[in-house]
Amino acid sequence: MHVQQIISTHPQARGAANSALIACIEECYDCAQSCTACADACLGEDRVAELAQCVRTCLDCADICATTGTLASRRTGSNQLMVGRMLQLCEEACRICAEECERHAAYMEHCRICAEACRRCEMACRQALQENFATQH
Amino acid sequence: MHVQQIISTHPQARGAANSALIACIEECYDCAQSCTACADACLGEDRVAELAQCVRTCLDCADICATTGTLASRRTGSNQLMVGRMLQLCEEACRICAEECERHAAYMEHCRICAEACRRCEMACRQALQENFATQH
Amino acid sequence: MHVQQIISTHPQARGAANSALIACIEECYDCAQSCTACADACLGEDRVAELAQCVRTCLDCADICATTGTLASRRTGSNQLMVGRMLQLCEEACRICAEECERHAAYMEHCRICAEACRRCEMACRQALQENFATQH
Amino acid sequence: MHVQQIISTHPQARGAANSALIACIEECYDCAQSCTACADACLGEDRVAELAQCVRTCLDCADICATTGTLASRRTGSNQLMVGRMLQLCEEACRICAEECERHAAYMEHCRICAEACRRCEMACRQALQENFATQH
Repeated sequence: MHVQQIISTHPQARGAANSALIACIEECYDCAQSCTACADACLGEDRVAELAQCVRTCLDCADICATTGTLASRRTGSNQLMVGRMLQLCEEACRICAEECERHAAYMEHCRICAEACRRCEMACRQALQENFATQH
Repeated sequence: MHVQQIISTHPQARGAANSALIACIEECYDCAQSCTACADACLGEDRVAELAQCVRTCLDCADICATTGTLASRRTGSNQLMVGRMLQLCEEACRICAEECERHAAYMEHCRICAEACRRCEMACRQALQENFATQH
Repeated sequence: MHVQQIISTHPQARGAANSALIACIEECYDCAQSCTACADACLGEDRVAELAQCVRTCLDCADICATTGTLASRRTGSNQLMVGRMLQLCEEACRICAEECERHAAYMEHCRICAEACRRCEMACRQALQENFATQH
Repeated sequence: MHVQQIISTHPQARGAANSALIACIEECYDCAQSCTACADACLGEDRVAELAQCVRTCLDCADICATTGTLASRRTGSNQLMVGRMLQLCEEACRICAEECERHAAYMEHCRICAEACRRCEMACRQALQENFATQH
């Protein structure tokens, strides 16, 4: 992805987009894709009825990750309060979705991969919060 | 990104998601991020008034790329007609946005990088269309 | 919704946003909501396995309607080519989703309501195309 | 909109979607549209440079409202924790955007209308939180 390149050329980034935030944006887009694909793969399984809750958490997590990646990509003016809150929410959505996917990971390969993407994004949100929004906690 | 891994485990992918489509999904998410960031960077420039059209095409392209990446990540049942049409639209949105960004690329580094992401996504859409939806043309 | 009010105050609307386009924007947002809710209601049904294709077309239609409503709400500069193409795609997504939902409408009330929202949006896209983008056809 | 109709037919709504939540979903979609249109109208103004922060808060608020409306439209299984947190975030995004738009409301009609949509959505989120997620506070 071009995240690092494009954010480093922002006229107002003023160092606010450090490597933790950049890594987090990348993980958000990756996790949005994984959750979208996992929700759909669950839907294609014969035992979809057992996976309804997994589809639900994947769709919610995909929407939250996409919005978080989008908000965190903006540096103009300031809306740092919203970005910080969104990162907290995203960390939690990823944790919830990872826990649900991990329940099926042993026999559903797409759930295993999705859980991995969620855990990476959860951790990236936490690190971005620590390095960029420490005073909010 | 986990695109290749997660799509190859889909119960109904049946070979329909070849490497051209997978590469295209990755470029769509990357281009959505670049266009979001470039729209915002343009907005932060002193000469934003000259860049209003660029913000517009970037926002439209970001929305279209995000939706294309999402639709193309789904393989359950079939909605191939929609995926093919969306890829055609995305190819065109990327071309329009690349042309606009290239007009400012000499003095706006973020426009130069965004144009590059748009051109890569435009080409990836074209290749995915050729390999997956040839009969539609 | 505030669609008519807010678009009529746009500095560059120059009459380009007529009542057909305004009605279409409203139907796009309504249909995005109905399709999101219907996909989720199908997922909550005991016979979800029979409804997997319906969930798929509803999710795709929701994404396309949301993007169409967003693009059509922008009047700055010009990206009329993209708005016109998006409206054509949306008309088709709504038709496909309506046809799928109508197959279940007799015994799934949410599918009956969703099909109705899709048909209204399909017609609103067609009218907006006729009144605003006639030369493109 | 069809919100009330379609949610009342959900197999698992079990009374969880009361009128406050339904009203809130409608306001979220309306506010997403108003903020999208206001961001674009600001961008079309000659004095866009003074309005850059307003475009930023409008785009963020549009994204957050759209995601909140989508999440709150899902009732399958449970992800109530996420819906509650998202409503809190949305209430705050609407308040921030309303405050920014109100600064320009006297001479920018689209900002006046957008602020009104934001205030309505802010209040609808607060009421939906009180009636549905009281224990979370």
